[in-house]
Amino acid sequence: MPRVKLVLEYDGTRYVGWQVQPNGLAVQAVVEEALEKLLGTPTPVLVAGRTDSGVHARGQVIAFDAKQRLPERAYTQGLSAMLPPDVSVASFEEVPDAFDPRRWAKFKRYVYRVSNRPVRSALLRLDHWEIFQPLDVPAMQSAAAHLLGEHDFSSFRASNCEAAHARRKLTRADVSGTAGAVVSFTFEGTAFLKHMVRNMVGTLVEVGRGKQPPAWVKQVLDARDRTLAGQTAPPHGLTLDEVVMGSGPHASAADSPSDDDA
Amino acid sequence: MPRVKLVLEYDGTRYVGWQVQPNGLAVQAVVEEALEKLLGTPTPVLVAGRTDSGVHARGQVIAFDAKQRLPERAYTQGLSAMLPPDVSVASFEEVPDAFDPRRWAKFKRYVYRVSNRPVRSALLRLDHWEIFQPLDVPAMQSAAAHLLGEHDFSSFRASNCEAAHARRKLTRADVSGTAGAVVSFTFEGTAFLKHMVRNMVGTLVEVGRGKQPPAWVKQVLDARDRTLAGQTAPPHGLTLDEVVMGSGPHASAADSPSDDDA
Repeated sequence: MPRVKLVLEYDGTRYVGWQVQPNGLAVQAVVEEALEKLLGTPTPVLVAGRTDSGVHARGQVIAFDAKQRLPERAYTQGLSAMLPPDVSVASFEEVPDAFDPRRWAKFKRYVYRVSNRPVRSALLRLDHWEIFQPLDVPAMQSAAAHLLGEHDFSSFRASNCEAAHARRKLTRADVSGTAGAVVSFTFEGTAFLKHMVRNMVGTLVEVGRGKQPPAWVKQVLDARDRTLAGQTAPPHGLTLDEVVMGSGPHASAADSPSDDDA
Repeated sequence: MPRVKLVLEYDGTRYVGWQVQPNGLAVQAVVEEALEKLLGTPTPVLVAGRTDSGVHARGQVIAFDAKQRLPERAYTQGLSAMLPPDVSVASFEEVPDAFDPRRWAKFKRYVYRVSNRPVRSALLRLDHWEIFQPLDVPAMQSAAAHLLGEHDFSSFRASNCEAAHARRKLTRADVSGTAGAVVSFTFEGTAFLKHMVRNMVGTLVEVGRGKQPPAWVKQVLDARDRTLAGQTAPPHGLTLDEVVMGSGPHASAADSPSDDDA
């Protein structure tokens, strides 16, 4: 019974997120339904990052045990054709039985996009947070540098985050782009807390709006107090861009089994 | 009564095109409805390029005579708020009474996007033509060079195109991008024939698929026979990217009053 890894793309606009919920359609539900059609048996899947309602994925990773060995095209063509238009299979791989997309993740990359034009945009509306006031990009870059490295990210976790502890390590925290046009935030790390990326973006945007100096972000981080951080940025600007896998379980990811992304 | 120029963005997915049609919702209809609400009187608009069903615009230009003089924000904020989410006002300008967005166009730029990955893409589905077979980009670049300059484009006009003649001048015909990823086609010219861009793209893609050599595109052009060209590329890959305005009417555009784009 081969273990299969798939990379998925999805437009999260009409979903309640990855995980099955009572209140609407989940990406997991449409994927497991299509897999059951393909394999003829219920097939539960493991996921690298549980994306929240409205969050998109360009490189979500899932894994499952397939009752039958099927060729690549059965997934990249067949399964993809059984999925709704806004969910697709980007690639297929057979992996070792022990493969776990969350525990084996060497790092995940999240990208958060802001349309910073002074007017709303019909073309960017579905995957950019629209902020009309010009943002100070260099100030946000300085501020983001305080988030790099290993810290207790309690100030940036959702109140209902279920992770055992809030220690996480960011290996990348970049702000790029042009004030008045599109500004992108890129974060890489092994694991993230619930709403962590969106809370970091909301906090950096306070700096970008000139309401706080860059050093304030370090104060917020050090205080370990969620009430000090900025607003949670809206979900539709966020994309799980890529999950880079290692060759086995990652020690620190294994520490937090209830790890909940984005 | 000031003449107003607006630049519009729209996601053409759910529209029958720019122009009001009996068979569905037109972008023109929602724009004129919102303008009537804003200005309190029916306000017919002139347009730079009548985009077809499913075609998008990043820089469509319209003009109209406003019954009242209103400030910029009445359009970029107020009118934009009255429009559906998939249509927005990018910019506002008061222009001379004689301004005509089609006749004053110095050139228009159309961009056609192809997703050339071997699998379908949930994220690119709404504005890319998906071609799974790898395309030969350098061959298409060579082929596109034959289209540059002034020619009779009869081979690339729709059968129901109403333009008085088929002479048009292309000042740019580029193919860029990477086989297996995203490939873009960029065309600039003062005016285009109905379906001209999509017919040129469909023809270049025949070369990209290796079915025809680059020089075949010159044969198709010289033959002035629509039956020789490739398929009409689907509309959703096409975007009216920008209309660059001159300071008065353009002679050659004025020659073809029934000019019909894209």
